[in-house]
Amino acid sequence: MPLTPLSPEPLAPQPGQLIARGVCRLLLSHGFAPLEEFVPERGKRVDVIGLGPKGEIWVVECKSSRADYTSDAKWQGYLDWCDRFFWAVDQDFPVELLPEESGLIIADAYGGELVRMPEESRLAGARRKSILQKFARDSARRLQALRDPRL
Amino acid sequence: MPLTPLSPEPLAPQPGQLIARGVCRLLLSHGFAPLEEFVPERGKRVDVIGLGPKGEIWVVECKSSRADYTSDAKWQGYLDWCDRFFWAVDQDFPVELLPEESGLIIADAYGGELVRMPEESRLAGARRKSILQKFARDSARRLQALRDPRL
Repeated sequence: MPLTPLSPEPLAPQPGQLIARGVCRLLLSHGFAPLEEFVPERGKRVDVIGLGPKGEIWVVECKSSRADYTSDAKWQGYLDWCDRFFWAVDQDFPVELLPEESGLIIADAYGGELVRMPEESRLAGARRKSILQKFARDSARRLQALRDPRL
Repeated sequence: MPLTPLSPEPLAPQPGQLIARGVCRLLLSHGFAPLEEFVPERGKRVDVIGLGPKGEIWVVECKSSRADYTSDAKWQGYLDWCDRFFWAVDQDFPVELLPEESGLIIADAYGGELVRMPEESRLAGARRKSILQKFARDSARRLQALRDPRL
């Protein structure tokens, strides 16, 4: 029987995750606190959510290729979870595919640039509060899991 | 010239920080997301703040000794930042020193027990929102600093 390693090699990051890292750095440079792979409600997941200094909520979906974008039919649902919505793509992405009313970020693994700022569509108070609360609890629990991994 | 290490040894955790770790584990077991060393406003710092599933905000001050407790004249200020306030001490602490109306947690580095639940004194909405927002942003930025340390 062949030996199997006790712990598998960590998976290599996917292209979209590399873009997400650059997006997080960009958001931090704009004073936003970023959180990756946030689940605002069961069955929905956004690539990056950012919380601004005045409580502004931005959502960024990261697309690494045309196929990655065209297979995602659910993006309009993301508008329900933020004040502003952005696509983040790399410099080779055919940006003419993207709806003009969305925000646009060009990013790679090391950073990004905010190319187009979308109109703001403010969340209603109750939903804002529920997103903020889940953002806070998820961030603190992930932080705690890194700080105290024996949990 | 003697060689000096490039990065100093990390400081050994203080007794209060060990209690704080046990408090965080206890809070997690009660469904609360914990965050250590939270600064609700300039010049104030609480040892542990916890955010409950319904948005409840608890503050826990960790005291490792009688001297540590009696030198802290500012604890009544903490009541302004939470719905419930607790002291956390180790099993050798003279608990008769502590005000009876405060909550009480007996803890060590590995966990804790909630011995006395204090009355709730609900925060006003504006302050709750500002604490929640700072909790969320601080947690996410600390998490990001651990995930992407080259920032």
